Amino acid sequence: MKFPSSQSIYFKNKRLFYLNQKLLPQKEVWEEVRSLASAIRAIKELRIRGAPLIGVFAAYSLYLAVKDISLKKEFLHQFKKAGEILSRSRPTAVNLFFSLKRMQKVVENNKLPLVKLKNALLKEAKKIHREEVIASQRMAEVGLPLIKKGDRLLTHCNTGFLATAGEGTALGVIYAAKKAYKDIFVYADETRPLLQGGRLTSWELLKKKIKHKVIVDAAAAFIMQKGLVDKILVGADRITSSGDVANKIGTYSLALAAHYHKIPFYVVAPVSSFDFSLRKGEDIEIEMRSEDEVKKVRGKAITHYKVCAYNPAFDITPHKLITAIITDKGLLQPPFERNIQNLLKDENKIFFPANK
Amino acid sequence: MKFPSSQSIYFKNKRLFYLNQKLLPQKEVWEEVRSLASAIRAIKELRIRGAPLIGVFAAYSLYLAVKDISLKKEFLHQFKKAGEILSRSRPTAVNLFFSLKRMQKVVENNKLPLVKLKNALLKEAKKIHREEVIASQRMAEVGLPLIKKGDRLLTHCNTGFLATAGEGTALGVIYAAKKAYKDIFVYADETRPLLQGGRLTSWELLKKKIKHKVIVDAAAAFIMQKGLVDKILVGADRITSSGDVANKIGTYSLALAAHYHKIPFYVVAPVSSFDFSLRKGEDIEIEMRSEDEVKKVRGKAITHYKVCAYNPAFDITPHKLITAIITDKGLLQPPFERNIQNLLKDENKIFFPANK
Repeated sequence: MKFPSSQSIYFKNKRLFYLNQKLLPQKEVWEEVRSLASAIRAIKELRIRGAPLIGVFAAYSLYLAVKDISLKKEFLHQFKKAGEILSRSRPTAVNLFFSLKRMQKVVENNKLPLVKLKNALLKEAKKIHREEVIASQRMAEVGLPLIKKGDRLLTHCNTGFLATAGEGTALGVIYAAKKAYKDIFVYADETRPLLQGGRLTSWELLKKKIKHKVIVDAAAAFIMQKGLVDKILVGADRITSSGDVANKIGTYSLALAAHYHKIPFYVVAPVSSFDFSLRKGEDIEIEMRSEDEVKKVRGKAITHYKVCAYNPAFDITPHKLITAIITDKGLLQPPFERNIQNLLKDENKIFFPANK
Repeated sequence: MKFPSSQSIYFKNKRLFYLNQKLLPQKEVWEEVRSLASAIRAIKELRIRGAPLIGVFAAYSLYLAVKDISLKKEFLHQFKKAGEILSRSRPTAVNLFFSLKRMQKVVENNKLPLVKLKNALLKEAKKIHREEVIASQRMAEVGLPLIKKGDRLLTHCNTGFLATAGEGTALGVIYAAKKAYKDIFVYADETRPLLQGGRLTSWELLKKKIKHKVIVDAAAAFIMQKGLVDKILVGADRITSSGDVANKIGTYSLALAAHYHKIPFYVVAPVSSFDFSLRKGEDIEIEMRSEDEVKKVRGKAITHYKVCAYNPAFDITPHKLITAIITDKGLLQPPFERNIQNLLKDENKIFFPANK
């Protein structure tokens, strides 16, 4: 089968395929979701990852989990069960929950016969997918005016076409800047423990022919001190109504260093990553992952086997350390709480930044 | 041969052995320095490392490089050459240069016959060694009153008996606290790229039966934000006359986070790590190491082979981010420049901290 490039999931003829990100950049292997269990495994093992992408993937997976059931009662039972299991697969990224909720709404509000109900579910999954693709384009448009020709940008984790259904969040803005100005440079944090920066972001940047260097996470503050960074762009797994951001572990450390060096710190995320039910960042559940992710690198032991590790997958960056949040609905600047409320009120309007 | 535990070099019967730190914690292998080339390789490949330890190791290596030469002219020629080669093996840690200079002085000021000159050299190397052992004890004494029972301490890289000739610098203080109070807890940064924290510090802490957890470097700021860290202790590779500190990459990032969270940030280093010829941290030469240290972990490729990496081995922490410097001659507090000058004037006096 021929798979698209610059894309990490592929839905065709009611079959769902994904590029196994655990094997990148050494191997490019597409795998098919053949069961709910295989979808859950793909999410939990981070074969597929990135808040916006998980949302799309979960919607398709939920549809696939029930598409062949012909008894309505059994269908409703399995639909509920599959939704619950999927929603427990990862706790921090909010897109997953919103996406599953939208699918649930289709079933709740629908009195259609089963065949048509399934079609409505498929339609909703495709709509979620399409919306995320468009969201990527919008974020790139909103973010582009903030970047200047020649800028040296620093990013964390992976936020490109491997993390979203489109071109990306933070990397999406960087790709737009590359197209517009040609001349940009990127420092990519390797992003321990799972090395999404070293493995995935640098692989995407190679494909996009963008000049870049990978650094260890601990070197970021030093290169800021040396004056080598003009702007920082990161993604988000969840944003509260006050503008606090949960994102990959290490984001907070970057934000502190950016604050000290007065370097603009931008978060790039679609409105689907906002959780308006939470106000404060500390209310966000932080996923604790296996100690083995720290104790081993790509299967190779680092520490003595008796050693314990502490492995929070995300951290919280308080809104006061954030210069602006680039969304698909416009640019959010301080005061964030008020501006996020305005965004909610006027969902269709897009705010563009006035200047670079 | 039976090698000592809690020690990383061993000099006996004019033979020099070292514990190969590249193989830790999976394998404990002692190797012998059989030539100048093998000594240089051991330093460059970080089989032996840690600023104070490199100084001792280089002194012995310099002695071994010339001990079998029987013609004085040839001896002087080889002594000069070996000293030059050793001094180029690593650029940042200053103990190496001071140690070699002391050995050079022995030769310069000496009109003795060759056999006695060699004995004088051996005596000086042993003296440098002994002084570093005593320095470790002194730092532990000076630092201990700063630690309280139950403290949760965070440290970076490795600064224990694998990095010094004694018990250690930062880890030496932690070992003293463990002996005095029993109840302490340590977070060890894994310290990418070469993972001295994950591989070596946690191995030492296991041996010393100290409760601890390894974290990825990027998680340090997050655990400070969560209130899990009482004090931070790090070592130093070079300290200027104003108190600016060159230490393992990531130290500066920690210092910034500590500053923001108002957590005491202590540097522990013997006076042999001070370079009074430099005033500002930015004048210290930062060693740039191979890209492969970032691109691979323990021989296993992370990034695509075409990717470039930027790999500074050290960074600079300006003195204004440092709470105090714990030395073998006493505790240095701000204003550092004046207090470092006083330390120089009154080298034999030891200043102890007044309270915890």
